[in-house]
Amino acid sequence: MNTNNKIQVCFSASQFESYIDGRSTVVVVDLLRATSVISTAFEYGIDAVIPVRTLEEALSYKNLSNHIIAAERNTLRIEGFDYGNSPYHYMNTEIKGKVLALTTTNGTKAIHLAKEHKLITGSFVNIDAVVKYLVEDNNDVIILCSGWKGFFNLEDSIFAGALADKLLSFNTFKSNCDSLQASTQLYYSGKKNLFEYLRKSSYRNRNNSAEVIKDTQFCLNPTISSDIVPILVNGKLIKA
Amino acid sequence: MNTNNKIQVCFSASQFESYIDGRSTVVVVDLLRATSVISTAFEYGIDAVIPVRTLEEALSYKNLSNHIIAAERNTLRIEGFDYGNSPYHYMNTEIKGKVLALTTTNGTKAIHLAKEHKLITGSFVNIDAVVKYLVEDNNDVIILCSGWKGFFNLEDSIFAGALADKLLSFNTFKSNCDSLQASTQLYYSGKKNLFEYLRKSSYRNRNNSAEVIKDTQFCLNPTISSDIVPILVNGKLIKA
Repeated sequence: MNTNNKIQVCFSASQFESYIDGRSTVVVVDLLRATSVISTAFEYGIDAVIPVRTLEEALSYKNLSNHIIAAERNTLRIEGFDYGNSPYHYMNTEIKGKVLALTTTNGTKAIHLAKEHKLITGSFVNIDAVVKYLVEDNNDVIILCSGWKGFFNLEDSIFAGALADKLLSFNTFKSNCDSLQASTQLYYSGKKNLFEYLRKSSYRNRNNSAEVIKDTQFCLNPTISSDIVPILVNGKLIKA
Repeated sequence: MNTNNKIQVCFSASQFESYIDGRSTVVVVDLLRATSVISTAFEYGIDAVIPVRTLEEALSYKNLSNHIIAAERNTLRIEGFDYGNSPYHYMNTEIKGKVLALTTTNGTKAIHLAKEHKLITGSFVNIDAVVKYLVEDNNDVIILCSGWKGFFNLEDSIFAGALADKLLSFNTFKSNCDSLQASTQLYYSGKKNLFEYLRKSSYRNRNNSAEVIKDTQFCLNPTISSDIVPILVNGKLIKA
């Protein structure tokens, strides 16, 4: 058992190149909403999620048997797709046993960026399962915040802080990473009421629709807790 | 007078590409220590600072009359150069009227990255002069934290928070930028005692020598206050 596993927080996909080491386990986070959607879909019985980069590629799965396709750009659902990027779309029995091809503005791009690493996805829906997995994995960890189009965002960063804080309570992890310190401080600033904390965030400014508000409340304080850790194997997220 | 100038904070040089607009005024920050050194050198009478990327390029200025050369890599001074990256090296009368060719690990690289923008440098030594300049400049602002080799760092980010906070007290500025919100929160967390706040930072872990501690104390709470805003014109920083 290595007792010296390093945890780092990468604040946005545009910075990830500096972190690449081909060795660490990467936890991709796109809290609002891709990785929350992925956790929810697994909890409701999806078999696998194929993260794809373009709308065209997602559409190519449309007529394959047993596949469903979902797309989001700039917070909005795209016409012609079965599902969007709301966790509530996946809370139904019809997705059971299916394969989901998903493309989103940031999350699925971040997954592609880090696909040469051992890669799992995290959200508040499965945070405890992710912690358990990483403790047993006993490896260095990079928490990769998807961010927004190359920019830092608050929601992924506070999740990174929450996850890092839980990991550091195990003596097999250590950190010498300024962004980890910052993320845990931001998480502690907001943890009493994360929804209120994000009131002035760019995400809320971008789309303050009833759907996004409902989704945000779910993603910050999910009503379900999942034991499933999605892991990328041959380009597909499956149960670890 | 535009009353709608946007302020953004870019947390590291590796993210700057997402911010480039060719229009905003960029404030480059490398608090420990390049931009604090630059402010100090101007206050002690330097005529111009040439930020250069490589040691070789800096050495090419060695035998030019009226030039001095300085270099730092990984917090350390480099042999063969007149000066290092400590503000105290520049508190002497010998630099008056000279031109300084300077290369550092992060700060001078960040300057090169943003050189197509109107570009000034900021530190706690000249923060009030920078605020006055930007208010009169009446333009969008990007505060560019140099970071550390592509990574986020706490010291540049808290300075960004302090500067953004001062700017937002003028009604000509607004912001919808998550990294600005985060940086002001981090600054407020630490402002009572910034030196103590940075106790666990990577910078302090990297080099905790007596010189760096003395420099850090100066850069966080400078004993001099400069009215000079260094601005990049034809590849040289001169007084704005």
